[in-house]
Amino acid sequence: MPQYKAPLRDMQFVLHELLHAEQHYAKLPAFQDTVSRELIDQYLEAAADFCENELSPLNQIGDREGCTWHDGVVTTPTGFKEAYQKYIELGFPSLSAEEQYGGQGLPNSLATVISEMVGSSNWAWGMYPGLSHGAVRTIEDHGSDEQKNTYLPKLVSGEWTGTMCLTESHAGSDLGIIRSKAEPNTDGSYAISGEKIFISAGEHDMAENIVHIVLARLPNAPKGTKGISLFIVPKFHVNADGSLGQRNNVRCGSIEHKMGIHGNATCVLNFDKATGYLIGPENRGLNCMFTFMNTARIGTAVQGLAASESSFQGALVYAKERLAMRALSGAKQPEKEADPIIVHPAVRNMLLTQKAFAEGGRALVYLLSQYADLVERAATSEEREFADNILSLLTPIAKAFLTETGYEAANKGVQVFGGHGFIAEHGMEQIVRDTRIACLYEGTTEIQALDLLGRKVLQTKGALLRDFTKIIYDFTQEQANNTELQELIGTLASLNKEWGQLTNRIGERASQNPEEVGAAAVDYLFFAGYVTLAYLWARMAVVAQQQLAQGASEVEFYKAKITTAQFYFKKVLPRVHGHIAVIAGGLEPLMSLDAEHFAF
Amino acid sequence: MPQYKAPLRDMQFVLHELLHAEQHYAKLPAFQDTVSRELIDQYLEAAADFCENELSPLNQIGDREGCTWHDGVVTTPTGFKEAYQKYIELGFPSLSAEEQYGGQGLPNSLATVISEMVGSSNWAWGMYPGLSHGAVRTIEDHGSDEQKNTYLPKLVSGEWTGTMCLTESHAGSDLGIIRSKAEPNTDGSYAISGEKIFISAGEHDMAENIVHIVLARLPNAPKGTKGISLFIVPKFHVNADGSLGQRNNVRCGSIEHKMGIHGNATCVLNFDKATGYLIGPENRGLNCMFTFMNTARIGTAVQGLAASESSFQGALVYAKERLAMRALSGAKQPEKEADPIIVHPAVRNMLLTQKAFAEGGRALVYLLSQYADLVERAATSEEREFADNILSLLTPIAKAFLTETGYEAANKGVQVFGGHGFIAEHGMEQIVRDTRIACLYEGTTEIQALDLLGRKVLQTKGALLRDFTKIIYDFTQEQANNTELQELIGTLASLNKEWGQLTNRIGERASQNPEEVGAAAVDYLFFAGYVTLAYLWARMAVVAQQQLAQGASEVEFYKAKITTAQFYFKKVLPRVHGHIAVIAGGLEPLMSLDAEHFAF
Repeated sequence: MPQYKAPLRDMQFVLHELLHAEQHYAKLPAFQDTVSRELIDQYLEAAADFCENELSPLNQIGDREGCTWHDGVVTTPTGFKEAYQKYIELGFPSLSAEEQYGGQGLPNSLATVISEMVGSSNWAWGMYPGLSHGAVRTIEDHGSDEQKNTYLPKLVSGEWTGTMCLTESHAGSDLGIIRSKAEPNTDGSYAISGEKIFISAGEHDMAENIVHIVLARLPNAPKGTKGISLFIVPKFHVNADGSLGQRNNVRCGSIEHKMGIHGNATCVLNFDKATGYLIGPENRGLNCMFTFMNTARIGTAVQGLAASESSFQGALVYAKERLAMRALSGAKQPEKEADPIIVHPAVRNMLLTQKAFAEGGRALVYLLSQYADLVERAATSEEREFADNILSLLTPIAKAFLTETGYEAANKGVQVFGGHGFIAEHGMEQIVRDTRIACLYEGTTEIQALDLLGRKVLQTKGALLRDFTKIIYDFTQEQANNTELQELIGTLASLNKEWGQLTNRIGERASQNPEEVGAAAVDYLFFAGYVTLAYLWARMAVVAQQQLAQGASEVEFYKAKITTAQFYFKKVLPRVHGHIAVIAGGLEPLMSLDAEHFAF
Repeated sequence: MPQYKAPLRDMQFVLHELLHAEQHYAKLPAFQDTVSRELIDQYLEAAADFCENELSPLNQIGDREGCTWHDGVVTTPTGFKEAYQKYIELGFPSLSAEEQYGGQGLPNSLATVISEMVGSSNWAWGMYPGLSHGAVRTIEDHGSDEQKNTYLPKLVSGEWTGTMCLTESHAGSDLGIIRSKAEPNTDGSYAISGEKIFISAGEHDMAENIVHIVLARLPNAPKGTKGISLFIVPKFHVNADGSLGQRNNVRCGSIEHKMGIHGNATCVLNFDKATGYLIGPENRGLNCMFTFMNTARIGTAVQGLAASESSFQGALVYAKERLAMRALSGAKQPEKEADPIIVHPAVRNMLLTQKAFAEGGRALVYLLSQYADLVERAATSEEREFADNILSLLTPIAKAFLTETGYEAANKGVQVFGGHGFIAEHGMEQIVRDTRIACLYEGTTEIQALDLLGRKVLQTKGALLRDFTKIIYDFTQEQANNTELQELIGTLASLNKEWGQLTNRIGERASQNPEEVGAAAVDYLFFAGYVTLAYLWARMAVVAQQQLAQGASEVEFYKAKITTAQFYFKKVLPRVHGHIAVIAGGLEPLMSLDAEHFAF
């Protein structure tokens, strides 16, 4: 199993040198006096230590043992509970929560960086505290004072965990058709009935109570997405003094046997007139979920980044050690019986692709998390609105593109190991299995693609896209005379222009037939992802170039940044030409075959 | 779990309408009087019945139970043994073996078609008899008469199975560095010592004896690939009367825990002065393995095709049943609570991609198996040599391209199911896990790519490639006036020309630096695969067009062929533009980073 090593140097590069985290926080009234570089680095080091030494060793154990279900009780793998207690003691659950409820009031963007380490070292484990964040945010944003006082302190401390109960077996992305019911009780509470599936961390033995946030329909609610309300359903009732009362009527009926993330319990939850409390206005449940769903999409983008990073780490160690064949240009280590496989261009191509996705993905996720800070905390409404536009555009790109590239990277990790990659003990195939879900949950790649092209780009008549391509345009103009990086800047400028033109071509078709959006969306999303990462790689190359020009001592580190950027532009980015050509194929070839004639 | 349904109509289309199997066999002296269409179809139907009703139901059981190892004894999953007995009773093991040893003397190409059904319904099971073929072929081709008489009858009948023992833990693709030893005994046999890993079907409870074909080095053998010899090492010694004698000193030390194909035992075999018998000349073991290795590569290409087919079958059923969202152009089934997901272009794109890979892959595999027949059986040496050239060129393409596209198709199968695809009970994720190995064993995709571009194309100075592109060229010339299919034929002609030009551009670079081959090879292989499949899809479209012109009754079947061909050309084939662009990026971006500076 690859031993996770937090890439602290690269994290610091992205945070401080690329994104100027300290200045970013200094501009936000909530953080300007509290968040220093010193504090950031302290948190990173504490998290690195915990992830490397506590979580990483449990990753393979969690996969092998999985969770077990017996008569409604779920037992997590050996060591998971104890690691969770340490995580609480170290104060990680409360990091970004409101101080009023025991939180540390630190930025979500800092929590995101830590979640990368947690996720890279043990994704299945990280989902337990990860889901709690969704519940905390939902109650913070939409709960009554009483609800906040009742649930937040224990959720914030980590003593209780939370879940998000959306999916039913017939309703995944299409939440408008859920059937769970909420009948009013006489005391103002509701009796919640229905079956929810795919509830991550829905039942477990790591915390004394679990607070479920449940989507259900009130009697006579309008059909569709406008008739869904949101309820708090605690596993154990909470007494007035905060102590735990009776068990509520929600039971875990079973846990799923699945491809990966075995260490996390994916539960079927049966609500049988369970007592629930309305949160937010009636029938506006989906609106109340938007913040959570967007946050969850960025959280899933982190899973893609984590897969790129951890599979890269595992493959790199192996590629330097494993001896096979001689280099085509002659033996590189003639004293050994064969050359290490890192001499072979095809192996280097796989490693560099993983590296480019990991480091580029990190830049994208951290950038997004800064925009998310701005949406909540920027001083002016103009700044908040602008950040919200960029965040809306980039969220589906980050979610789908980073999970797809993370899955590719994970598969490349197996491929570097050859047949050994297929064997469980090396841990490389686990990364593939664990990561596969990331392209599915929180909205599949296809759903993200429709969100991007349909809702974010075409429905705004390109307004959000222009905001972002303007940022790229300004950057390429600013660097127009950067002769050393001319090729990168020129390629980026021309693809940025192509982005607009490609959008116009699809928009024209879509005005004739809206199904054209569905035909183009996935390839459009990949195009957008490759160009967005190209922008970040070009920026990183410029930063590295400036550091070298200023005589920085870590010469090889900065040179590697520039080399990786060049690799990305020459050997990864050109894939866009395939996507452009496929988009040109249009809708018609997809629709000509009648559903009954797909097979005979 | 998807219930496998043998795609008999499509198999017959490829065999009879595209490849004119009956005429093919009529031209081969060995088969001209024995193999009729009636006989072919009888075998197909018998195999379909067995695979649909016996093997398919065991596929998920095999995955869930896996094999178990206890003190050197391996137990296969419930039902595997019994199914194997039926397979023997039905006479399948002996189908293509020589009549002299109890075989039916039928063409290997017919066995390949049956292996597609076996593999699509239960790949892990199919590997037990599959590996025996390698042992049979090796003994048929290189064994002494005594060896043939001793081992072939029972291997051919299926009473015994065989293995191929090549890999050692430090030596996979690089067989030149294997360490297993063969010390001469006084009686002409050898004492074989060493550890072999990844031995599929190396130990099991399905047959009374296992015949291992083992690579090992004689004392003072030359270093590298020219010092490897081949030995027969039976699990149980065989007495002069054919009965089983003492146990030989080969033991199964453990079985691997792996990502997929759980139903097949992947064994560590320890040879401790086990008695072995030299087969073929001393130090020429690798040469003797060439036929086997090529056959095994086509066999693995079948696994890719099988994954495309079985994942397509599973996804198609689901896409017609599952309701989610409305079509972007308005409700298609307003009476239901949502439309079936097959209305959405992105879902259709995934299904059609699977279908195009399955049916195109089938055409490629069956075509190759006809060339393999010709190599062995054609009447003249010119025909045999020509077929050998085409087969040599197309084998690495089929192996790597069909397994990579099979893996893509398997992943699309999961994607069509959304979150449910990740859950074991639906069986879609099993296809992904089972198929992942196909891109690794029998030479990784990267190794196949080097074989194609380095050995087959550049080392022959393009001779083999010209043989094949000439076939494509002749076809496009012949169809130059086919106005209805003009776009397909024109695109194919221009990509066929580009194939030569692309090769020249790489060849020029490689003449400066041989590492350029390694930098281009994988993308070159994908280019070659997409164009080869385009050729077959264009041919299939022409066949369908002709059938329709001749008033065939199955109008929808033939129309679907043409529609799928058009889909392939418009929505899959354009991916080549990405690969061409990546190849243009060359070697340099892969080599600039020192191995020590990949991570900091």
